[in-house]
Amino acid sequence: MLTKFVFSTIGILFSISLPAQNDSAAFKKIADEVLTNGKAYENLRSLCKKIGPRLSGSPNAQKAVEATAKMLKEAGADTVYLQPCMVPHWVRGEKETGYIQAAGSVKRKLNLCALGNSVGSGKKGVAAGIVEVSSIAEMERLGADVIKGKIVFLNFPMNPTYVETFRAYSESGIARWGAPTIAAKYGAVAAMVRSMASNPDDYPHTGVTVYNDSFPKIPAVAISTNDAIWLGRQLKMKRQLTAFIQTNCSMLPDAPSFNVVGELKGSEFPNEIITAGGHLDSWDLAEGAHDDGAGVVQSIEVLRALKASGIQPKRTIRAVLFMNEENGGRGGAKYAALAKSNQEQHVFALESDAGGFTPRGFIFETTNSRFEKILQWKSLFYNYGIYDFSRGGSGSDVGHLRETGAALAGLRPDTQRYFDVHHAATDVFENVNPRELHLGALNMAALVYLVDKYGL
Amino acid sequence: MLTKFVFSTIGILFSISLPAQNDSAAFKKIADEVLTNGKAYENLRSLCKKIGPRLSGSPNAQKAVEATAKMLKEAGADTVYLQPCMVPHWVRGEKETGYIQAAGSVKRKLNLCALGNSVGSGKKGVAAGIVEVSSIAEMERLGADVIKGKIVFLNFPMNPTYVETFRAYSESGIARWGAPTIAAKYGAVAAMVRSMASNPDDYPHTGVTVYNDSFPKIPAVAISTNDAIWLGRQLKMKRQLTAFIQTNCSMLPDAPSFNVVGELKGSEFPNEIITAGGHLDSWDLAEGAHDDGAGVVQSIEVLRALKASGIQPKRTIRAVLFMNEENGGRGGAKYAALAKSNQEQHVFALESDAGGFTPRGFIFETTNSRFEKILQWKSLFYNYGIYDFSRGGSGSDVGHLRETGAALAGLRPDTQRYFDVHHAATDVFENVNPRELHLGALNMAALVYLVDKYGL
Repeated sequence: MLTKFVFSTIGILFSISLPAQNDSAAFKKIADEVLTNGKAYENLRSLCKKIGPRLSGSPNAQKAVEATAKMLKEAGADTVYLQPCMVPHWVRGEKETGYIQAAGSVKRKLNLCALGNSVGSGKKGVAAGIVEVSSIAEMERLGADVIKGKIVFLNFPMNPTYVETFRAYSESGIARWGAPTIAAKYGAVAAMVRSMASNPDDYPHTGVTVYNDSFPKIPAVAISTNDAIWLGRQLKMKRQLTAFIQTNCSMLPDAPSFNVVGELKGSEFPNEIITAGGHLDSWDLAEGAHDDGAGVVQSIEVLRALKASGIQPKRTIRAVLFMNEENGGRGGAKYAALAKSNQEQHVFALESDAGGFTPRGFIFETTNSRFEKILQWKSLFYNYGIYDFSRGGSGSDVGHLRETGAALAGLRPDTQRYFDVHHAATDVFENVNPRELHLGALNMAALVYLVDKYGL
Repeated sequence: MLTKFVFSTIGILFSISLPAQNDSAAFKKIADEVLTNGKAYENLRSLCKKIGPRLSGSPNAQKAVEATAKMLKEAGADTVYLQPCMVPHWVRGEKETGYIQAAGSVKRKLNLCALGNSVGSGKKGVAAGIVEVSSIAEMERLGADVIKGKIVFLNFPMNPTYVETFRAYSESGIARWGAPTIAAKYGAVAAMVRSMASNPDDYPHTGVTVYNDSFPKIPAVAISTNDAIWLGRQLKMKRQLTAFIQTNCSMLPDAPSFNVVGELKGSEFPNEIITAGGHLDSWDLAEGAHDDGAGVVQSIEVLRALKASGIQPKRTIRAVLFMNEENGGRGGAKYAALAKSNQEQHVFALESDAGGFTPRGFIFETTNSRFEKILQWKSLFYNYGIYDFSRGGSGSDVGHLRETGAALAGLRPDTQRYFDVHHAATDVFENVNPRELHLGALNMAALVYLVDKYGL
């Protein structure tokens, strides 16, 4: 299937415009480099096992900044630098607890965790009756008469019939990021959200919730899907239940942090910038292996693979490790703000933030004419597991570059397993496969190579 | 993306020839059924956890026959029956052992296992110097002068640059199935094969080896990739090493066993047969979850999903659970022999035996004109993760039907993770994802539905 090529004249080969056959040879050279000598997996091991969780503002996040700056140097970046930015500093505090109790019955402990950016309950915790809702509309309908003084149980299961799990996440995820504050609007004393997970499990899946400043800030937790299924059944039997929630989280003053940037300076158009990035921060419940350690080490690998393949880019290629995607997006915003204030010329920005799973496609956010140009490269990717070039939202970090006019893109790995590990204790290194991770990286590197070579 | 349809007239809908739009609706109905109510995952749990390893001729293989016959009845098969066939009955015996020793140094224990169908070493084991080879050609070159009296270490790594891991397996797998007997030809006293695994690990990966009756039968083991890498390094340093291998396996007389068949009788062309199958036997080191518990429960799910979707097939649809794919292929041969002796008319046979991973395509083994017809359905599969319809070898069990003139096909899941678990202790239920497994099943069911509806 894959023909072998001899690269006796690499230097010349990549400095002139070449027919598609040589693109295929260059692609194979990059691919072989990553599949044979790829460092992404070992870098991920280091990030996950030597550092671990790295929530914005935490000591571990700082360690990750330092460690990945070192990785970028080792990958062969010409320049590595940090972009200072202030980040929200939310801390979970002591482990949360909670249970359900029926009158005169024993307590059932809940597998729960506070939602990111939520307020703590105080030491006494919150105890109240439960109102289950399956949509925001249902909350609006029930109103304060029913909700006031209660703990609202936001039970929005992810739709299993959507093949793309992100579609289900977008639809039901509102339960976590938008609904708790609506519950507060109607006087709820706390919100208890069914975890956003594709399959039943015993892990609470955290993630950010967003308060509306017009309403009180109430404690908000995620409970495991198995707990949610059980609780839904209990409530269906019209059992009178009380929930108790105790969380110890709090939002501290903003903390200083950094984006990490590594560059390969362009030989012909050094002012034209191509970015490949992922986010360095992770939730605190696990190692952030898929989310988004994978995107971080893949972005570093893009630089390493190009360099190791003897490719001298015409444009400046950056691996950018964004801080604070999870609970603020400050790193992405800072990167775009600096692009603007420094009058940088951004051509293309590619994000990997959907897990280190086997790649299937890229999603592009750009003009018709640029997309037409990109489509001409599509068949080069078929042998490497990528067949889907579609249009849509690129990614939350590179999305900040929209104003610059850069073409934006996101790597689209297979999504079936993502919401088993997403924001949960299961997002650990052991759940990442080295070949899948490296396939993603090599496809990213090849796309960057093509954009660099042909421009957009 | 996916439109919702109302199925008020299912009965009528599927009894007449319909335009493609209704194929899409039927596909969605099947898909929603599997993604919402699919039983494949729970059936797999039962097969793996209640029964476990099920090597041909073992008591567990018989339990699996009985359990899956029951599953087929529960899935709604009109008829469930067993096809008796005699199978090779190889037993591992007591756990094998082995080590490497340098003169005057401590022993290093090896992670090893006897290869399937190999002979045991006897209680004393075999101890000898080591000759490392990386190809059969190298053995032929070295010949008896070097190999005689030695343990040959067959160190053929899987090529990491092949994106399709099966390609690397086909190439290096000869070390396991074909090379040990060549070592015997030149007088080797035992063969020690590097496990066929994509990534370094500590597990021996077993699998069948095939003796040539012209040469002596020598003990043959697989050692873990990490052991092979270590041993290769030691030998490169010209260290004089002795290997010791002790295996307790033996081939007993053939044992009686069965294929398990479940049918949905066709309403219009009951004599035309469509088969969906996987193999029921597994290696003895784990639960055979991906290999091939997945194919078994997916094949059962094909029947269940069609039945539960209210689809009355025109042709007879069979789920066939083949016995003895791993170390003899007797079940597949028996099924084809019965097809011939019973003068059955086989239209199509689809196999799933490449793991329960996220599906990417189907591979077809058929005539040009039939393939052209099949290609017309391809776009229906895009929304369900399948985009690749290619031509090539279908599968080792349905392959026996070649003579019948049936079109043959194999499900092609993503292959990146397969050789982490293949034939090793890691092939357990926990390594199968329910959504990936069900996506494979629903695509199989949809393909069977289309072949049933339009014929071939």
